Amino acid sequence: MPAKKYLLGIDIGGTKLAAALADGEGQLLHKTRRPTEAPKGSQHVLDGILHLGREILTQANISSSDIACIGVSCPGPVDYKTGIMYTPPNLPGWGDVPLKEILQKEFGIPAKFDNDANAAALAEYKFGAGVGYKNMVYLTMSTGIGGGIIIDGRIYRGTHGSAGEVGHQTLLPDGPLCGCGKRGCMEALCSGTALSRIIREEVKRHPESSMLKLAGGKAEKLAPPVLIEAAKAGDELALQIWEEAGYHLGWGLANLANILDPEIFILGTIAIKAGELFLAPARKALDKFIFNRHIPLPELVSAKLGDEIGEYGAIAVALAT
Amino acid sequence: MPAKKYLLGIDIGGTKLAAALADGEGQLLHKTRRPTEAPKGSQHVLDGILHLGREILTQANISSSDIACIGVSCPGPVDYKTGIMYTPPNLPGWGDVPLKEILQKEFGIPAKFDNDANAAALAEYKFGAGVGYKNMVYLTMSTGIGGGIIIDGRIYRGTHGSAGEVGHQTLLPDGPLCGCGKRGCMEALCSGTALSRIIREEVKRHPESSMLKLAGGKAEKLAPPVLIEAAKAGDELALQIWEEAGYHLGWGLANLANILDPEIFILGTIAIKAGELFLAPARKALDKFIFNRHIPLPELVSAKLGDEIGEYGAIAVALAT
Repeated sequence: MPAKKYLLGIDIGGTKLAAALADGEGQLLHKTRRPTEAPKGSQHVLDGILHLGREILTQANISSSDIACIGVSCPGPVDYKTGIMYTPPNLPGWGDVPLKEILQKEFGIPAKFDNDANAAALAEYKFGAGVGYKNMVYLTMSTGIGGGIIIDGRIYRGTHGSAGEVGHQTLLPDGPLCGCGKRGCMEALCSGTALSRIIREEVKRHPESSMLKLAGGKAEKLAPPVLIEAAKAGDELALQIWEEAGYHLGWGLANLANILDPEIFILGTIAIKAGELFLAPARKALDKFIFNRHIPLPELVSAKLGDEIGEYGAIAVALAT
Repeated sequence: MPAKKYLLGIDIGGTKLAAALADGEGQLLHKTRRPTEAPKGSQHVLDGILHLGREILTQANISSSDIACIGVSCPGPVDYKTGIMYTPPNLPGWGDVPLKEILQKEFGIPAKFDNDANAAALAEYKFGAGVGYKNMVYLTMSTGIGGGIIIDGRIYRGTHGSAGEVGHQTLLPDGPLCGCGKRGCMEALCSGTALSRIIREEVKRHPESSMLKLAGGKAEKLAPPVLIEAAKAGDELALQIWEEAGYHLGWGLANLANILDPEIFILGTIAIKAGELFLAPARKALDKFIFNRHIPLPELVSAKLGDEIGEYGAIAVALAT
């Protein structure tokens, strides 16, 4: 058995931390998780990360010298070369943390980094809906809309590592405020956060909708899961909201397709749960707004890896060339 | 003197054909032009192209065996690998022409192809405003808005060679009709054609503007040159039109910057002639609509090569890796 055949993946999220051990081909062998507990401070989170790493070595009964490489998926912004995380918005008080240095000191092995959107893009590319494609765009579709662009099988980073901010293209300059401070970004029109805002506004205007009842009468529970349930039961308002969100999604994807000419768009999180409720109107708008009619429409599918995308993402970062 | 040290460039435009001879580094040594005379049919145009090629060999007193490679810049769509041009809109009745085969048969040397937007992007990258940059986007800014995306020093083509249609991102879905059949494309809001349409509409509404007088009272002469002249003389309406066109241009560039993170945008044709009248409001909108405030704003400049960009483009295609 060759030495150093394993890969260690570490996924740092705002609510959970995960570690995974994979073989040299990326096949998951062991995994373990714990809550991030970000409010307890960065030292607590760091201790949690190192603990998970050691725990998985113990689980697998191997030592760190059997690991070829650590792959880390973490919230952006992160410098993928130096492995320094810069005060991620989901980890308040974190500051600038030289995580690569810390991991290498603890485990004595090289570590590779990427932000969670790029890591998820690589995960779908290597293990999910992107297998067999060369040019793809992954969209996170959760709180915000992050993007990972893969060109010829490699993450495209741009000049400053800031490429792929596909969710912040402006569609409606006078539209709703985005978390980034601009107005009418694609993210402000069809991310999870945007959908929750839209549902609450619309239910106020249309109290006859079934959605408030489905949310147990609690406005704060008016969120994408309720929207999915109501639409599946035929609620007109819910269906209209999906139609409009899909329109904005497809419009933004068409702009991307005109610029990048990808083979496939792969959409995470909400798109997985909503499926065709979201994808069908998006596909219609993609067809409406795309320029090139003489080439096939890019495919538009939801991600395949579901709940394990964090683990696969970290391992994919370790495998990336 | 090493054999095969020269490069032959052929630039096929809707109104003129050009041929250029360059040394192995791309330095222009000879050039010659003739009108395309597209209405006389494809055989006439083809004869013109071959004639120009032979003419320049005669001028330079060399034979085709001294040429290492022919570079061809032509209207899209063209298959850059096979060198087949597919019925370019500016060359009516042209059909699908296997130009690579024809050139190789005539001159017995390999030929490389690209569309005019990519060729111009390569020209600016190698010889113009893009020297020293790795990631840039060139925009043609003439009748339409074509784009050439250079990533790490190479043209990015996308899956089907259709990437870079930056002018057909939709900004205003209910906006003016674009030549492509969609509404409110960036091209329909700030290309040369769009500007001519806007000037004519606005002058009808504001007959007090100096522009009609500058156009000699002829509505059909209300076009970008008049708009430039009027704005330079302080005409309020002309300045407003540039302001608004620049706003749409900068908005579209910001969307591009959010996706691609380029170092520089280089703009041809109208942007060269209008200069800061167009670029200053575009820069303001770029700053307004860009997402990443922690990285430098991409530079926004007009192209440097001016009238010779066709010749340099063809030579740059011959040089491209």
